[in-house]
Amino acid sequence: MQKENWNDAIKDITLPDEEVRQAALARWNQLAKPLHGMGKLEETIARIAAIQGTIHPLIDKKGIVILCADNGIVKEGVSQTGDEVTAVVAGNFLSGQTSVCKMAKAAGADVLPYDIGIRTDVKGLTRTPYKISCGTNNFLREPAMTRKETIQAIHIGMQIVKERKQEGYEILATGEMGIGNTTTSSAVACSLTGEPVEVMTGRGAGLSDKGLTRKKAVIREGLDKWRPDPSDVVDVLSKVGGLDLAGLAGVFLGCAKYQIPAVLDGFISSVAALAAARIHPAVRNYLFASHCSKEPAHARILKELGMEAPLCLEMALGEGTGACALFPLLDMAMAVYEEMSSFDDIQIAQYEEFTT
Amino acid sequence: MQKENWNDAIKDITLPDEEVRQAALARWNQLAKPLHGMGKLEETIARIAAIQGTIHPLIDKKGIVILCADNGIVKEGVSQTGDEVTAVVAGNFLSGQTSVCKMAKAAGADVLPYDIGIRTDVKGLTRTPYKISCGTNNFLREPAMTRKETIQAIHIGMQIVKERKQEGYEILATGEMGIGNTTTSSAVACSLTGEPVEVMTGRGAGLSDKGLTRKKAVIREGLDKWRPDPSDVVDVLSKVGGLDLAGLAGVFLGCAKYQIPAVLDGFISSVAALAAARIHPAVRNYLFASHCSKEPAHARILKELGMEAPLCLEMALGEGTGACALFPLLDMAMAVYEEMSSFDDIQIAQYEEFTT
Repeated sequence: MQKENWNDAIKDITLPDEEVRQAALARWNQLAKPLHGMGKLEETIARIAAIQGTIHPLIDKKGIVILCADNGIVKEGVSQTGDEVTAVVAGNFLSGQTSVCKMAKAAGADVLPYDIGIRTDVKGLTRTPYKISCGTNNFLREPAMTRKETIQAIHIGMQIVKERKQEGYEILATGEMGIGNTTTSSAVACSLTGEPVEVMTGRGAGLSDKGLTRKKAVIREGLDKWRPDPSDVVDVLSKVGGLDLAGLAGVFLGCAKYQIPAVLDGFISSVAALAAARIHPAVRNYLFASHCSKEPAHARILKELGMEAPLCLEMALGEGTGACALFPLLDMAMAVYEEMSSFDDIQIAQYEEFTT
Repeated sequence: MQKENWNDAIKDITLPDEEVRQAALARWNQLAKPLHGMGKLEETIARIAAIQGTIHPLIDKKGIVILCADNGIVKEGVSQTGDEVTAVVAGNFLSGQTSVCKMAKAAGADVLPYDIGIRTDVKGLTRTPYKISCGTNNFLREPAMTRKETIQAIHIGMQIVKERKQEGYEILATGEMGIGNTTTSSAVACSLTGEPVEVMTGRGAGLSDKGLTRKKAVIREGLDKWRPDPSDVVDVLSKVGGLDLAGLAGVFLGCAKYQIPAVLDGFISSVAALAAARIHPAVRNYLFASHCSKEPAHARILKELGMEAPLCLEMALGEGTGACALFPLLDMAMAVYEEMSSFDDIQIAQYEEFTT
């Protein structure tokens, strides 16, 4: 589908094991509880089983991969804060001083931040080969990135998953930090879905009415200027996207390649997932929605991915906080799935499937 | 509002502390994150603070109060399984062999089961004064309970909260186990809301089409026969309700009286909450919705209570499983609320409130 031979890296992506999924669903039905009583969590655990290729999957070692990058488009006044905030918050991931760090600690997950393109270096965080550049270009003046940089970011995302898999991570969530990245996400979303800017653009971290109008105008101008080709995801990401978006698309491709369940966070993460699913359609079988954010286009992107979010909390924080919120629900579902008695054990007759 | 002087027990119920709620919301706004970024969880924690009367509330000691009772209406074939299942599952709460026990262990909550009216006694569970009777009457033949039994059950619910508060419980969720209790819940819901049986009745644990038709006919007949007075909640509960429903209404009244946040579970729990809120309107300020179950009328009851459920998992298991699922989200929100730095700490300018 893409022009370069980087497709070689994704050609071994396959679908999860359908037989295992069916076996896991059958196991749910034997447990001493009303049939389908755990609702969507039953299908969720069955899909995790299928991805890991075993009816006894493990999700004990959890990570939240957070890609941090700056966006040249911030120069156009599309964000509430200046882009110096990206580096500050990225640094705070290391010291545990961000919202997602607090939540991850409570959820028993590790926060795994990366500098994939922050404007300045961040002590202790910035490392080769993860940093592609010091932020993207202002896409009103030139394309955000080169094709080469975009593909490099996708590769880095895949490499991160490979390395984390080798370290024993069993499930990964995604997050991001990058001032201006709801602007790039909306631009990419418009291009990939064909939906108008009006529908796909929200207030991000809390933009004023005036700021929102400006943001929409900037996205329209960028899309008009570069006319990215929606059938060529690398073209879209390079012209109006960002290093975090391209890297996250790589993370989702990597999760499919290395068979790791991938939990989506909010709007930005979901746009990256849509990009990955356009690159290889099997990717969506490795994805799990978490929350539906306050960003209005998020539900639209999830629908495009064929997903619904189980958490309706109106969160709009980024960093992977929504994805992290799903982890304890998965742990509780796993506890029922693995530890619950069967009908035989507790000596009551099995509930029958009702006829509809 | 009620005819007997049991109202004395609830006359000291007051509203939570609004000043504390405002102070907690102000604290959220000072934290180094996008304004309102934690969405509904911010208001939730602020309400817990208001109930406990401190901007530093504690929800470490968590309990799930599960009331178990049998329903005479089961004789009319409204349930998928026989009522011997109530005692079996109630006994399994003690040995940790039920779905909610597995989830509660993962969530760090205690399962607190009570026999308030199981047909047979359950070794280790049945205790005075909690057991009111050995199940209700078949409400097609006579009223489910006497007024006296109903009020006794409400009092027991309140007493349970008082005792658990003395033991140090800081937040309580509710659950129930009682074959036939979606039938009694639908009947009570119809009476309290004036909605038709068709709208308020679902498949419970998984009834067939034929069973569902039968269940609706039974509820219609019961309501026609006894014509409970919707302005007199005790009348409604005694004629077509159950001991679990009356007891849970008492638990919610008790949470308001003893200032403990009360987490709703599914349809049954929510109907009991509605009954409690009709007895004393301040009760709803102590309630927290958890999930919206597959039982179709649940969302309607939550709306009547002015609430929306944050979890959309299509669970239909009972036992307090949906309520338990909310606990880790509250813990994560508390972690951010208590441990997160302020904007001053991390040296970036505060996000401004946007103008809409």
